Amino acid sequence: MSLPKPPLRELEKVFGYTFRDSERAEQALTHRSAAAQHNERLEFLGDSVLGIIVSEALFEKFPQIDEGDLSRMRATLVCGRNLAKIAQRFEVGKFLVLGPGEMKSGGHRRESILADAMEALLGAMYLESDLDTCRKVVLNWFAEQLKTIQPGAGHKDPKTRLQEYLQAQQLQLPVYDVVTIQGQAHNQRFTVSCTVEPLPEAVLGSGTSRRKAEQQAATQTLAMLQAQQETKNV
Amino acid sequence: MSLPKPPLRELEKVFGYTFRDSERAEQALTHRSAAAQHNERLEFLGDSVLGIIVSEALFEKFPQIDEGDLSRMRATLVCGRNLAKIAQRFEVGKFLVLGPGEMKSGGHRRESILADAMEALLGAMYLESDLDTCRKVVLNWFAEQLKTIQPGAGHKDPKTRLQEYLQAQQLQLPVYDVVTIQGQAHNQRFTVSCTVEPLPEAVLGSGTSRRKAEQQAATQTLAMLQAQQETKNV
Repeated sequence: MSLPKPPLRELEKVFGYTFRDSERAEQALTHRSAAAQHNERLEFLGDSVLGIIVSEALFEKFPQIDEGDLSRMRATLVCGRNLAKIAQRFEVGKFLVLGPGEMKSGGHRRESILADAMEALLGAMYLESDLDTCRKVVLNWFAEQLKTIQPGAGHKDPKTRLQEYLQAQQLQLPVYDVVTIQGQAHNQRFTVSCTVEPLPEAVLGSGTSRRKAEQQAATQTLAMLQAQQETKNV
Repeated sequence: MSLPKPPLRELEKVFGYTFRDSERAEQALTHRSAAAQHNERLEFLGDSVLGIIVSEALFEKFPQIDEGDLSRMRATLVCGRNLAKIAQRFEVGKFLVLGPGEMKSGGHRRESILADAMEALLGAMYLESDLDTCRKVVLNWFAEQLKTIQPGAGHKDPKTRLQEYLQAQQLQLPVYDVVTIQGQAHNQRFTVSCTVEPLPEAVLGSGTSRRKAEQQAATQTLAMLQAQQETKNV
């Protein structure tokens, strides 16, 4: 059985932000499994608030770094897994309102539910305050990571990450094959397959260059391997 | 040969915004093929400024519409093709600074280059003003579309769009097959293949439900068909 839900006030304390509209804050903590008034619209809004704040912070912190590296760092910071970690630090799971099914199956700990709630809380904040106020809260969430984050390090490109993942598990390296090249010079579209041992089928990726297509295939392959891994760990 | 580039002042007039830092505005118009100081970092920033403004506008305009429909409408508005259309309306192509290769091959008209420049211009605006100022400019870009946009209509889900695309060309309907289902209940990952006549290989999509996987495969299939089509039209 789950413990009684602590008052919102406790969460506000760790966030350093007091909601004016506590009903909306509660909605931000409500998963769609629990009520018709759930947090998905707020999450939609919060996602873009998070995007601008993190983009801006990285843009300013790294005046010489190109768009590709900035994007990779942003992806590292705002990905579901990282948001869930931040949520865990603030024990956001305790405050969630979940339906009975999600409650039973450990929804309080599920990364996607935690990450979505963080975005929804940010959306709720934004609606009743402004970007400056949200920025203070969000920069506090990411304070440590923004201090230590470095381009390149830790945001290796997807092919490198896939390779390292497979090596760590002592598996064969992935094999990439060009499946199709469509279009003419200046407007080509490459489709590439990525084959790895643990997956029964090759995963396809496409892009305007062979490299981009391979990166996309690697991203998807890695996501599928990690999903497989998580399931095994349950 | 290309015409001489008109002064920035003309673009400022149609935008209703005067840049304080005209050097940065010029950089926002500079493709990476032309100079080391190009627009990609500004585009990175502008992309997220665009995201929050459009998200917020949709969130407010449609208080009863769920996150899925809001996301689809946002995707319709901020997609490269739509941004390029807006750029064409403002004749942004005239103001672009391109390298010789891009100039020769019609880079002034290329959708991705136009769309990126719009985002970069927005990034440049944001750096020297604030979100409120940017919002006015952006809401003006999208004024007509925001008046007429409706959830559902025009943002049909990818499977519907793919079907309509194929029907318009009197081709067979796509065939979807489940390739793999990985994981256990509550954490499954579906991989689905989408087979259509004009493409030599099935396109894969994956997601946490069969429907999501099919939608992803349909999106990618449609993108590949359109890329093929565009190439034929060149």
